[in-house]
Amino acid sequence: MDATDRRHAEALDAADPLAPLLAESIVVEPDLLYLDGNSLGRLTHRVRRRLLQTIDEEWGRGLVRSWEDWIELPVRVGDALAEHLLGARPGEVVVGDATTVNLYKAASAAIAARPDANAVVTDDDNFPTDRYVLEGLAARHGLDYREVASDPISGPDPDRLAAALDGAAVLCLSHVAYRSGALADMAGLTGLAHDHGALTLWDLSHAVGAMPIDLTGSGADLAVGCTYKYVNGGPGAPAFTYVRHELQAELRQPIWGWFGQQDQFAMGAGYRPEPDMRAWLTGSPTIFGLVGIEEGVALLAEAGIERLRTKGMALTSLIVELADAWLAPLGFTVASPRDPQQRGSHIALAHPDAGFVAQALIDAAGVIPDFRGPDRLRLGPAPIATRYVDVWDALDRLRRLVADGTHRRIAPRDRRVT
Amino acid sequence: MDATDRRHAEALDAADPLAPLLAESIVVEPDLLYLDGNSLGRLTHRVRRRLLQTIDEEWGRGLVRSWEDWIELPVRVGDALAEHLLGARPGEVVVGDATTVNLYKAASAAIAARPDANAVVTDDDNFPTDRYVLEGLAARHGLDYREVASDPISGPDPDRLAAALDGAAVLCLSHVAYRSGALADMAGLTGLAHDHGALTLWDLSHAVGAMPIDLTGSGADLAVGCTYKYVNGGPGAPAFTYVRHELQAELRQPIWGWFGQQDQFAMGAGYRPEPDMRAWLTGSPTIFGLVGIEEGVALLAEAGIERLRTKGMALTSLIVELADAWLAPLGFTVASPRDPQQRGSHIALAHPDAGFVAQALIDAAGVIPDFRGPDRLRLGPAPIATRYVDVWDALDRLRRLVADGTHRRIAPRDRRVT
Repeated sequence: MDATDRRHAEALDAADPLAPLLAESIVVEPDLLYLDGNSLGRLTHRVRRRLLQTIDEEWGRGLVRSWEDWIELPVRVGDALAEHLLGARPGEVVVGDATTVNLYKAASAAIAARPDANAVVTDDDNFPTDRYVLEGLAARHGLDYREVASDPISGPDPDRLAAALDGAAVLCLSHVAYRSGALADMAGLTGLAHDHGALTLWDLSHAVGAMPIDLTGSGADLAVGCTYKYVNGGPGAPAFTYVRHELQAELRQPIWGWFGQQDQFAMGAGYRPEPDMRAWLTGSPTIFGLVGIEEGVALLAEAGIERLRTKGMALTSLIVELADAWLAPLGFTVASPRDPQQRGSHIALAHPDAGFVAQALIDAAGVIPDFRGPDRLRLGPAPIATRYVDVWDALDRLRRLVADGTHRRIAPRDRRVT
Repeated sequence: MDATDRRHAEALDAADPLAPLLAESIVVEPDLLYLDGNSLGRLTHRVRRRLLQTIDEEWGRGLVRSWEDWIELPVRVGDALAEHLLGARPGEVVVGDATTVNLYKAASAAIAARPDANAVVTDDDNFPTDRYVLEGLAARHGLDYREVASDPISGPDPDRLAAALDGAAVLCLSHVAYRSGALADMAGLTGLAHDHGALTLWDLSHAVGAMPIDLTGSGADLAVGCTYKYVNGGPGAPAFTYVRHELQAELRQPIWGWFGQQDQFAMGAGYRPEPDMRAWLTGSPTIFGLVGIEEGVALLAEAGIERLRTKGMALTSLIVELADAWLAPLGFTVASPRDPQQRGSHIALAHPDAGFVAQALIDAAGVIPDFRGPDRLRLGPAPIATRYVDVWDALDRLRRLVADGTHRRIAPRDRRVT
């Protein structure tokens, strides 16, 4: 059946093994089509229940006594992420601080471990905060900051990276590119970096929860990632940090805090870091974020990351098919890899008026996409929360809106979406 | 009337101008006496309402659109803290990251601003994470780490500090000592540091919300502080950072993140920091923490920080009076300044068995104190949430428990309270 026939999407939904889990997401406005799961995942019933329990029972009733459990969360939730979503081993992941802070800690540790290096390397399509953190560290340590040109659709270029890696301390890349959705070859590029003596630092923010990740098998050294997109941890939930077990004794992060201290509540003189990933913790973790992540991971584990990946590829493929059929004549081009194996779970559509279109979709069509300047409309259908007919209907509304010229009559606002 | 007569406490409650606001705190177990407001402030009705609104309306219904408001929170909540609790000007405070991370950013900026300095200075009774952060920065930058002996009861010693300040980049002290509650002279010690060419970095964690703070008038350069104690922001709510307006152009923090970038959502090439306090932001702020703080500050503002201070001094004075009358014969000594003007809002009581006593109070007497090894029982009656009879009853239970020897029959656990 042709993808432009809505019954095609209906048939996909009828055959979706994850359909029963759609009810886990809280949908306040059923007619609102949410395709921004790559920016902020939906509230789910189990996260909501857990938050209420944390508010009323743990904080309200338990008061400070609840720290006996809370103190375990950074490691426990890290282990859950490692097992179910990251392909990492127990004791390799902790949760705490923002992605930006964790990038700083990880890149600093890599730089300190390569005292003879003269550069740090990333790509020009990496997420802004990754680029800024590396630029700042390079400036402070007197290193070259090398920003290698990536293909805007297919992502990092191994040849250009190879040419930039001589003398590098660390190569920092995103596993899934935040604009195009291009999936970088973690194992291959890690091997390339290692060939040049550099460590790798992977930003998993746009990948985690959308596809299987194999940190162990890929040989990655360090990784960070955020938890408020596909993991559904809630707005501003803390990020995670991964350090390969074999490197934990060598790599030392620069922010020496009391949560990294051995026998923390002895509050003794002199910093003696824990011998494991707890040395990467800094201060008091944000409890509401941690419990949200724990429930978010549990839901994704129930769904199964392989099934989520399969559905995510099918959802984005439906977007591509409909874009080719309906949107190409309206001036849109698919700005993501066409092979679903080569991309994450979002699709970028390039159009000169993308900013106006994004605003019009929200204001006048009941569709929430995402806009990335200057000309990219991003559509991120979270597999755990999105039906195929949601995608079909959203693309249908999109083509009608553009065909009608509605987007030309909408006053653009300053769109600020993280 | 004698303080040992419960009617004395009852009379104080009857005359308490803040008594009507006691109903704002959620008390699940009325017979449980909570004297650990200096560790984790109570849940309040207004914070709970706001959290539910943020969960259901902002996250659940608003989804990513809510970032239009959320994005303003770090500055808006910072300004509220500045106005109502910190004696700072608009645009001098932002909220985000943990206290530990903010200490790192602030101390790093101070070190970078004093390139000819050869040391950092703190005191040996400063909170552990302050000491560890400074020790780590000193090690990384090749500076002396100078930890000056403080008096365990009265706090920092100006003469000893003066002797250590030669060549120092920064003096980092707590305004209220976490163990003894000693209140440091912010203006005097800032002047002393300035005389030696050093910047000051004040940790306000145990002071904010308990007493008026005058960052502007004291001449303080930098300050940080936590929000989950007297401010009632919730477990792990993010910390704040203050940078004096006149220094904002000069002091640059080391973690270059996208929340500090001009025109953040242009996501452009090259880090161009905001010209103001937003340059001190890093990554996505934790929304549940920020809304909790906003409501917490609003409640304290309604109470009035001067009235909170007056009540805090009276509450801690009642502890001292009852400790002298009842506990001194049982081997306790008051390990906090006796002049209420010289201390914050908690009292430390020294006793060789303090750890057993703290555990026994929780397990067998319905009193929640705090223990700081090796021998300190801390009692922190938050003025917004504590009645004088709560203090009286808690001390009464404490003396009976110790007199009975109950604490000797309780198995101690590893108490972990932040």
